[in-house]
Amino acid sequence: MSNSGNPATRGKMVNAFNPDSLSQLSEESRALISKRARLLGPAYRLFYKNPVEVSRGKGVLLYDKHGNEYLDAYNNVVSVGHAHPRVVEAVTEQMSTLCTHTRYLQEGILKYSEDLLGTFGGRVGAAGHTMFTCTGSEANDLALRIAKHYTGKQGIIVTSEAYHGNSELTAGFSPSLGDSSPLGTWVRRVGAPDSYRIPKENLGRWFADQVAAQIHDLERHGNGLAAFIVDSMFSSDGVYAHPVDLLKPVAEVVRKAGGVFIADEVQSGFGRTGDKLWGYQRHGIDPDIVTMGKPMGNGFPVAAVAVAPEVVESFGRDMRYFNTFGGNTVAIAAAQAVLNIIRDEGLVENSQKVGKLLRDGLQGLASKFNQIGDVRGSGLYVGVELVSDRAAKTPDAAAAAAVVNGLRERRVLISATGFHANTLKIRPPLVFSAANVDRFLTEIEAVFKTL
Amino acid sequence: MSNSGNPATRGKMVNAFNPDSLSQLSEESRALISKRARLLGPAYRLFYKNPVEVSRGKGVLLYDKHGNEYLDAYNNVVSVGHAHPRVVEAVTEQMSTLCTHTRYLQEGILKYSEDLLGTFGGRVGAAGHTMFTCTGSEANDLALRIAKHYTGKQGIIVTSEAYHGNSELTAGFSPSLGDSSPLGTWVRRVGAPDSYRIPKENLGRWFADQVAAQIHDLERHGNGLAAFIVDSMFSSDGVYAHPVDLLKPVAEVVRKAGGVFIADEVQSGFGRTGDKLWGYQRHGIDPDIVTMGKPMGNGFPVAAVAVAPEVVESFGRDMRYFNTFGGNTVAIAAAQAVLNIIRDEGLVENSQKVGKLLRDGLQGLASKFNQIGDVRGSGLYVGVELVSDRAAKTPDAAAAAAVVNGLRERRVLISATGFHANTLKIRPPLVFSAANVDRFLTEIEAVFKTL
Repeated sequence: MSNSGNPATRGKMVNAFNPDSLSQLSEESRALISKRARLLGPAYRLFYKNPVEVSRGKGVLLYDKHGNEYLDAYNNVVSVGHAHPRVVEAVTEQMSTLCTHTRYLQEGILKYSEDLLGTFGGRVGAAGHTMFTCTGSEANDLALRIAKHYTGKQGIIVTSEAYHGNSELTAGFSPSLGDSSPLGTWVRRVGAPDSYRIPKENLGRWFADQVAAQIHDLERHGNGLAAFIVDSMFSSDGVYAHPVDLLKPVAEVVRKAGGVFIADEVQSGFGRTGDKLWGYQRHGIDPDIVTMGKPMGNGFPVAAVAVAPEVVESFGRDMRYFNTFGGNTVAIAAAQAVLNIIRDEGLVENSQKVGKLLRDGLQGLASKFNQIGDVRGSGLYVGVELVSDRAAKTPDAAAAAAVVNGLRERRVLISATGFHANTLKIRPPLVFSAANVDRFLTEIEAVFKTL
Repeated sequence: MSNSGNPATRGKMVNAFNPDSLSQLSEESRALISKRARLLGPAYRLFYKNPVEVSRGKGVLLYDKHGNEYLDAYNNVVSVGHAHPRVVEAVTEQMSTLCTHTRYLQEGILKYSEDLLGTFGGRVGAAGHTMFTCTGSEANDLALRIAKHYTGKQGIIVTSEAYHGNSELTAGFSPSLGDSSPLGTWVRRVGAPDSYRIPKENLGRWFADQVAAQIHDLERHGNGLAAFIVDSMFSSDGVYAHPVDLLKPVAEVVRKAGGVFIADEVQSGFGRTGDKLWGYQRHGIDPDIVTMGKPMGNGFPVAAVAVAPEVVESFGRDMRYFNTFGGNTVAIAAAQAVLNIIRDEGLVENSQKVGKLLRDGLQGLASKFNQIGDVRGSGLYVGVELVSDRAAKTPDAAAAAAVVNGLRERRVLISATGFHANTLKIRPPLVFSAANVDRFLTEIEAVFKTL
């Protein structure tokens, strides 16, 4: 596995709008972008060299105000499709009835918690608890607080380009935010399981050995291990979906060291990976804590921590936790609607089936275009690694940026990820159809032809 | 000012449900409470000895599923009233059109930001930026991150019973969470401006002197001062609204030390305090950062940081900030509707007018009931401090708990606050009417008669 990286792309959004290209845009876009910089300030980023203005959405389609249609192959928040009528209806009905917090007795939150907990199996499923937050960042922040309280230790281990949140605590263990965003002294990193460069049969042991070494280092520094946290799809590291026995050895190492295993399902959960509802379940592991967010309410802000009872017991005794909006009546209505839709519309199965079509099609393109080094993924979470030299597997960030922006000009929306930002990240709503795959493949082939 | 406290109530919710009283409840409530404990775990708390199950709300009224009506005199989230049709309509329309994030160009967020920034005046208003989060905790977490980046220092000063959030960072400077929730080593506390016990004419200087001493201590320990953060209504300290020239001297001390002044308006903002839209404006100060949340979307999760441009410049350059749900299209629609309603319905003026009626009425009761030591507040944010001895001003937490729970039995909902948890916290939706005040006073008088 390569450990070098291009510091110029590292931690930057390769697909981000760059103000240098401002002069090439329409007057209307320029005016809006400059107003945006004035009002929202310097910390905000836009997607694409030519940013997209969106004004409505339906299913997998987005429209700008001129009526131009975009195929959304990136949005994992609206996973049951833009403006799904059942979610709109659930939110509307609950908003017009009651929108309030969890310090009153309510049945809805209990019904949803029971339903959700029933999906996990293992220790979290058997007798676990759910704690509601508004964002995945809040869920991961709370998860680490719980893990530290439970273990009495401070250290956490993450993959080298992981992203787990934007609070101070979670940004402190999110190396993908880039070199100028400081990591905590209590954070250790391990290389992601680069299945393109490391033989798959060695990956599990290689990964677990790295974690064991970092646990030892945390202990040597007096931090000790509070938690190991992992997104089973390694979203920011470059999308690695296989092998699926990867996480078992590392889970054993973590448990043996007394650490808490946190499955961060914010990106990989709720059917995204196809064959199971949760990404970690593909690996056959039994985490202590599961965190979730993005697609949970199809855009309504809701997120959660599900935790094995013994892990949260002392935290619950010593610290109360209240999140004013977290799990409020409307958030629960949205989340319940989403879970119902995923089941009623068979979206896990659709993710599996259509995701395979998509990967097969991309694999087909690999025979035509040498830039395609690797096609990987699970369900509707697909990574396509672009290289300038197939034999040497040399990362090609420029090609990835060209494809992402080229697709945008053809009104198809995706992004790129990884240490070298050379891996296309394709992650459409779970209602993506075979016809949508055809359209996607036609457009991406056209872009590859221009490279 | 008394610095002692009853460790038995300190940091506890005096108005929280206590499992010891379970046997006194209906079978239905018991079943729901035990199901709740099983599913949500040990960190959740319920209001009241006899928890309320709510199933719908309208204006200032809540209803349980048996149709019993409650007067809501506590809910500051639904500040334009439960289920306000204009908010429901705005959320419904936007949810059915488009619910997506800030990395696409959108006009709504810019329009709202401009509108919001126009309400501040001063440095934040003149050329400031807004950054959107989902919760007040996230807003305060981000505010301190910005302040630390700007100053290069770590320390923060808060009041002795302040609450600023539930993330690890913000819980670390929220002493009201209680003795078992650890404060950061970089946190210093100052006594709240107890206008009941300290002569008002001395308070400003006394408060500023404390802050100056703690700045010196932070510097001596090598932390330095990053920020002073204050809720101008001192919500968790006991609700102190006067004198309104209190914060000017401390703002000077903070600025002189190079620190960032953060006005935490999560509880006191959006018209709550009557004469101005923002609580800090009553003090005539010009903060570097304003944070806001709770009532911003009338229950829809949305919160924000407004910041003077020079304070966020380096943070914006070095760190990107992205919050998936923060300021999404629907959050903005809800927030815009709320701001419009506050103006269209004259809710700041109503808060001022009806709040005065409420305080006058409570002041009237003070002549009948010796337990009422002090009535204070601004707008519809009212604190009533209960004492067992008026001359000695001895805090009476038991009386406060009796009033809160007694009112609940009469279907009027309030809470209690402060170091001794002996101050009634009365904080109804801003649409509270004179008739609502009458009903409230009738009920609270009846409860006082039973003490």
